[in-house]
Amino acid sequence: MAKLHFNYSAMNAGKSTALLQANHNYMERGMQTILFTAGIDDRAGRGVIKSRIGIDTQAIAFEKSDDLAKIVRAQKGDQAIGCVLIDEAQFLTRKQVRQLTDLVDQDDIPVLTYGLRTDFRGETFEGSQYLLAWADEIREIKAICSCGKKATMNARVNADGEIEKDGVQIEIGGNERYISFCRKCFSKAGALNT
Amino acid sequence: MAKLHFNYSAMNAGKSTALLQANHNYMERGMQTILFTAGIDDRAGRGVIKSRIGIDTQAIAFEKSDDLAKIVRAQKGDQAIGCVLIDEAQFLTRKQVRQLTDLVDQDDIPVLTYGLRTDFRGETFEGSQYLLAWADEIREIKAICSCGKKATMNARVNADGEIEKDGVQIEIGGNERYISFCRKCFSKAGALNT
Amino acid sequence: MAKLHFNYSAMNAGKSTALLQANHNYMERGMQTILFTAGIDDRAGRGVIKSRIGIDTQAIAFEKSDDLAKIVRAQKGDQAIGCVLIDEAQFLTRKQVRQLTDLVDQDDIPVLTYGLRTDFRGETFEGSQYLLAWADEIREIKAICSCGKKATMNARVNADGEIEKDGVQIEIGGNERYISFCRKCFSKAGALNT
Amino acid sequence: MAKLHFNYSAMNAGKSTALLQANHNYMERGMQTILFTAGIDDRAGRGVIKSRIGIDTQAIAFEKSDDLAKIVRAQKGDQAIGCVLIDEAQFLTRKQVRQLTDLVDQDDIPVLTYGLRTDFRGETFEGSQYLLAWADEIREIKAICSCGKKATMNARVNADGEIEKDGVQIEIGGNERYISFCRKCFSKAGALNT
Repeated sequence: MAKLHFNYSAMNAGKSTALLQANHNYMERGMQTILFTAGIDDRAGRGVIKSRIGIDTQAIAFEKSDDLAKIVRAQKGDQAIGCVLIDEAQFLTRKQVRQLTDLVDQDDIPVLTYGLRTDFRGETFEGSQYLLAWADEIREIKAICSCGKKATMNARVNADGEIEKDGVQIEIGGNERYISFCRKCFSKAGALNT
Repeated sequence: MAKLHFNYSAMNAGKSTALLQANHNYMERGMQTILFTAGIDDRAGRGVIKSRIGIDTQAIAFEKSDDLAKIVRAQKGDQAIGCVLIDEAQFLTRKQVRQLTDLVDQDDIPVLTYGLRTDFRGETFEGSQYLLAWADEIREIKAICSCGKKATMNARVNADGEIEKDGVQIEIGGNERYISFCRKCFSKAGALNT
Repeated sequence: MAKLHFNYSAMNAGKSTALLQANHNYMERGMQTILFTAGIDDRAGRGVIKSRIGIDTQAIAFEKSDDLAKIVRAQKGDQAIGCVLIDEAQFLTRKQVRQLTDLVDQDDIPVLTYGLRTDFRGETFEGSQYLLAWADEIREIKAICSCGKKATMNARVNADGEIEKDGVQIEIGGNERYISFCRKCFSKAGALNT
Repeated sequence: MAKLHFNYSAMNAGKSTALLQANHNYMERGMQTILFTAGIDDRAGRGVIKSRIGIDTQAIAFEKSDDLAKIVRAQKGDQAIGCVLIDEAQFLTRKQVRQLTDLVDQDDIPVLTYGLRTDFRGETFEGSQYLLAWADEIREIKAICSCGKKATMNARVNADGEIEKDGVQIEIGGNERYISFCRKCFSKAGALNT
């Protein structure tokens, strides 16, 4: 009985590390896995899942128009698939999350997704909204706020280091553009609109 | 360090029972609590939290226009508040969930919310969307599908017992209008749009 | 794929309420359940599971010598068993927890157990030790310390209201004999040996 | 309000990776951490925490006679400690777990421990028994059984590849000596005594 898992966190919690470790566990058992990451996030190169602690691997770069169930079923071939792993899952569309539920419910393939919960304004992404709505298991990967509490929100800073309150939802960037905060510090910084 | 908790589930899992038990635990320790439930849900009478296993209590009936932080601070009086408990939390607005984060972060009052994750089409409610986005702790209360698996979705049936796929999001009703399903059975029944 | 669940907590968290609610959920779906509680705990009458918020039901009173797998298989009859629920599970023996794993792994019956984690000295009971060791899912039901933090330990008081540090592990009693504390308050009260 | 965390799993789940990632998160925020691992486990060299996916770091090698609270307080110096992280925590003594509760409750230092739940016979280690008994948060890191289910048990094999049922509790070894199984496969293999 496969499940759809959503492992969510703020930025810089170690989502990609957790994904790479889970993938390693399956492969060590001789099971086939299929990895995806968002084509839009090409910080480490297109189709590369890269962890801040120094490990990386190749993955299929998904675009908004892709049918993930179709891709997985085509890849499947003769060997059973132990697991599908998806990084940057906040960038999935509603339709794609729906496809993942089919892979789980119809094909009995476990799907592990890793992604941000909210954007720089505290709003959910389309992918995270539907993963939070439909996942069988929701689990937090913990990040740390500089105040010592758990960080759950992601603030975006501009070139002058100022916190942005408006703008487009997606601007790909790393530690130089985003700061993880606990909700209290995020709110104090003025990033969470009333 | 107070937290905002979201205890979500499908219908008929025992959310109100869990809320009433948590409230009992606080009161037994001599701590003051404040209870809310949605004014719109008057199945057991307006402002009544009633559990299917036969216990109930009075609560403040909240409306969309209410400022929950203001109400709690006004009620507070001389005695500290041990906990705020909110039933039918899916009916909260974004603004009200924001107010709850203030009660937690500024007033250091734990807030326990209980609500549905998704509606009869598998879409999040406004309240559940923002609680899933901002809660410090997200925890599932388990319901059972008739197939024996965990139920996570809520189907709505019409007077003829047929599953509804469209319609207004909120129609207050109990066991006669809603059936909890696991996602696989929900999807088979045609309730989850592609 | 059935699982062995251990729902643990300090005293006065609402374990029996949670058990009765889960049982209600199964029965509402027309599934057969079998309930057990410890014969040694006869506060509410032998073989009665009674919740502090005012609900109760009959259960099979188990003794240390009972073979739980045998009892369940004998009860089973023609109808499938939806779930086995066990209250006061800390009083199970290692052998009985082992029998429960067989019900889960061989007979594919979900087993939900509810019990204390530790005794009045902070030591595990035999039942809780093996449930913590072998359960598929371990979940806490939260109790409250009078300081406002989560209570996780159980202190025992004598007739003069003094905290006991030594004595036999099992003395059946309720609110008048046991106080739930967070670990810090428990330790301050001198109940946790170094 | 610091907490004592126990992250448990079967072998080859990725405990060390998770520890190293958490440590990285704290250090990235400019917080001081102190790392321990069991002196007895010198597979990667004494005092080295090494992950199977290729990252490692130095740690203090703890012995049964060490006072961990004393060591941490001596290391502390002028700078606050963000976090204490302990690998191979199953090898802690009851006394040492007690010391960790003091670091949490008296010094307000978060302590993250990572370790096995049970040994090759399904019995708890001294360290895991008391961490399961006293931890504020218990969380599983998932390993995979070759049957596709979650692995929760650790079998030990001898030089001929046969499963051992008896012997001393601790024999340091890696993938060549230990196999992670789900409880059903572990039991089928005859490793779990009745």
